Amino acid sequence: MKENTLLEEHTFTCPDPFHLESGDVLPGIRIRYHCSAGSHRGRQVVWICHALTANSNPCDWWPTLVGEGKFFDPSREFIICANVLGSCYGSTQPDSPDFPLITIRDMVQAHELLRRELGLEEIHLLIGGSSGGFQAVEWAISNPSLIKNLCLLACSARISPWATALNESQRMALQADPTFANGAGRQGLAAARSIALLSYRSYEGYCQTQAETCNNVLTATRACSYQQYQGEKLANRFCAYSYYVLTRSLDSHNVGRGRGTPEKALSHITARTLCVGIDSDLLFPLSEIDFMARHIPEAQKQVITSDFGHDGFLLEYEQIIPLLCKFLNLEEVR
Amino acid sequence: MKENTLLEEHTFTCPDPFHLESGDVLPGIRIRYHCSAGSHRGRQVVWICHALTANSNPCDWWPTLVGEGKFFDPSREFIICANVLGSCYGSTQPDSPDFPLITIRDMVQAHELLRRELGLEEIHLLIGGSSGGFQAVEWAISNPSLIKNLCLLACSARISPWATALNESQRMALQADPTFANGAGRQGLAAARSIALLSYRSYEGYCQTQAETCNNVLTATRACSYQQYQGEKLANRFCAYSYYVLTRSLDSHNVGRGRGTPEKALSHITARTLCVGIDSDLLFPLSEIDFMARHIPEAQKQVITSDFGHDGFLLEYEQIIPLLCKFLNLEEVR
Repeated sequence: MKENTLLEEHTFTCPDPFHLESGDVLPGIRIRYHCSAGSHRGRQVVWICHALTANSNPCDWWPTLVGEGKFFDPSREFIICANVLGSCYGSTQPDSPDFPLITIRDMVQAHELLRRELGLEEIHLLIGGSSGGFQAVEWAISNPSLIKNLCLLACSARISPWATALNESQRMALQADPTFANGAGRQGLAAARSIALLSYRSYEGYCQTQAETCNNVLTATRACSYQQYQGEKLANRFCAYSYYVLTRSLDSHNVGRGRGTPEKALSHITARTLCVGIDSDLLFPLSEIDFMARHIPEAQKQVITSDFGHDGFLLEYEQIIPLLCKFLNLEEVR
Repeated sequence: MKENTLLEEHTFTCPDPFHLESGDVLPGIRIRYHCSAGSHRGRQVVWICHALTANSNPCDWWPTLVGEGKFFDPSREFIICANVLGSCYGSTQPDSPDFPLITIRDMVQAHELLRRELGLEEIHLLIGGSSGGFQAVEWAISNPSLIKNLCLLACSARISPWATALNESQRMALQADPTFANGAGRQGLAAARSIALLSYRSYEGYCQTQAETCNNVLTATRACSYQQYQGEKLANRFCAYSYYVLTRSLDSHNVGRGRGTPEKALSHITARTLCVGIDSDLLFPLSEIDFMARHIPEAQKQVITSDFGHDGFLLEYEQIIPLLCKFLNLEEVR
C-alpha cells in the first residue's frame, strides 16, 4: 500500500478464477484502486470510472474535479476509482498480444468484486466519462438498486461503427509496428495515440492551438510536432498490449447484448441519471446522448458547449460542476 | 501511347532540370496524362485536377461525371487530367523516403509545362476536388488570365492544423512499419488509409453502411473488416513512398505563401469561380469554403447536403451536376 495525501492506493488480489464474458478464464485477477482514507461508513460513496488510458487516481487526470477542496473532496465523500482490467496501471494486464477479450462487462464484474470486498452497499454517485461512462451505464443496468445517482459524460449505450472504425485504425497502426509482437510497439502506439487524439479534439480546437503563425513557411509543421509529442508521451507511459486490449473492450460495448435491445437494457436503470454531451464531440455525437437520455427512465440531459470536442469532459469543469450541483441538489457550487 | 476508348493516355517527358519550390532540383520530369482524342482547337478545354491517390484518368474515379454521354464528354470538350508529380501513376515518383518535398505549387508548375507543350492557351473550366482543388486554386492565382471558369470542390485556400494533424498521423503509421524504409510499407500504408478514410466519411455515413446487424455479438467487427478491406485495397494499388510524399504536399498548401496573406492571394483570381462545400465534410468544414468564396472576387458558393462527408465530392454527382449546369450557364442538365 502506497500512501497518497489525497487518495490511498491499494491492491486487491482475488485468487479465484475470473470467468470472462467470452468464456475464457483468467486464473485470478489483481485490481489496483485508489480510495479515500478511513472508513466509508457514514459517508457518501462516489465511484469514479476512468477512461481508456487513465489510472485509478482521479486526482491525476481529473484534478479540476477531484482533490482537497475540490468538488469531489476525498476527505468528505468516500471516493473510489479502480484501474480497469487489462490496463497497465496495476490491475491484471495482458502479457501477450493474444490476451483474451476483456469486455466492458468484465471490467464491471471486477468492480463488483472489489465493491463487495470493501462492503460498499450503496453507491451514492457513479460517474464516468467516455469509456468510464461505458462501465457506469453497464453497472447501472446490471445492478440497478446499488446506484442512487448516475452521471454519464460523453459516452453511449453502444459503440458506433464510426468509433469502431477509429479503434480499428489504431489497432492497424499498432500492428504495423513489428516490435508490437514482442511487447514494445512504441512507434505503433504513438501513431495510434495520434489518431485517437484527433477523435478527442475538433477542427476548431486545432485551429485555436496548432495554427501556423506565419504564411511564408514551405510546409505546416506545428500540428505535426504536436501529434509526435502526444504520441511519444503516451508511448512513454502506456503499454501497447494494454492499448490493444482496451480498444477491443471499447468495441465490445453494447448494453443491449443478451438483453433484447439497448433501449430495453437502458429501461432497467433505476438510478437518477444525468447524461451530459458535448456539442463538438466527434466520438459521441449528441444523438448518442439523446438516445441514452430518452431510454433511461426520467433521465436528465445537458449539453456542454466546447471547442475541444470529446476532451471537453476532462477540460470543461467550469460547465460540468454547475451541472453536477444541480443534479445532486447541492445548494451552491462547492 | 496507350489507346483508351474515352480518353487517351500519354506521357510527356521534360528533360530540363525541374526547380522545386524547396530549392531542390529534379533532373527532368515525366508527366503521365489523359486527354481527349484529336485536336483541342475549336473545343472548350476542361482541365480536371485529381486528388490524393487518384490517377490521370477521371473516367476511372469520377465515372458519374466524365465519360461518353456524361456531363463531361471527352468527345465534346477537350478534357485533360495530369497525374501529379510524386504520384505513382506514371509521373515522376519518389524512389526513396528521402525524396524532396513536392509542394502543390510544384504540381501546378508541372501542369503548366504540359499545358504549354500542348499549346493550350485557354482553360475554359478548371475543376478539382480536395487536393485537386488545391492545385486548381493555386493555378488560378499564379496564372489568372489562363482560366475562364474555376470550380473548387471540398477544398481550402490553406491546409488547416486539423488536416495536418490527420496527415501526420498517417505518416506516423507509415513510419511505424519498418518495411517502409525499403519501399514496401504495406501495413503502414493500409493503416494510413484507414485513418484517412475516417476523415473522408462521417459518423452518419458509417452508421448507414457499417452498423452491426445483431445485438448479441460479443464485439463489433463489421466496421473493422471495412477498414481492413479499404486499407488492403489501397496497399494493392498505391505506393507507400508516393503516399508519404503526397501527404507532405497537402501540408505545403497555403495560397498566401510569399503573397502576403491567403486573402490577398485569392483576390488575384479573375476566373468566374464556384466554390462547393459539403455540409458533413470533416476535412474541409464549410467555414473554409466560405473563406474562399468571400475572398475570390465575385465567387459563388454552394453547399451539398450529404451523409458521406468529404467523399461527397466523388459521390454526390446528382447534386454537383445541376450546380455545374447553373454555373456554366448550360440550359439544362446534360
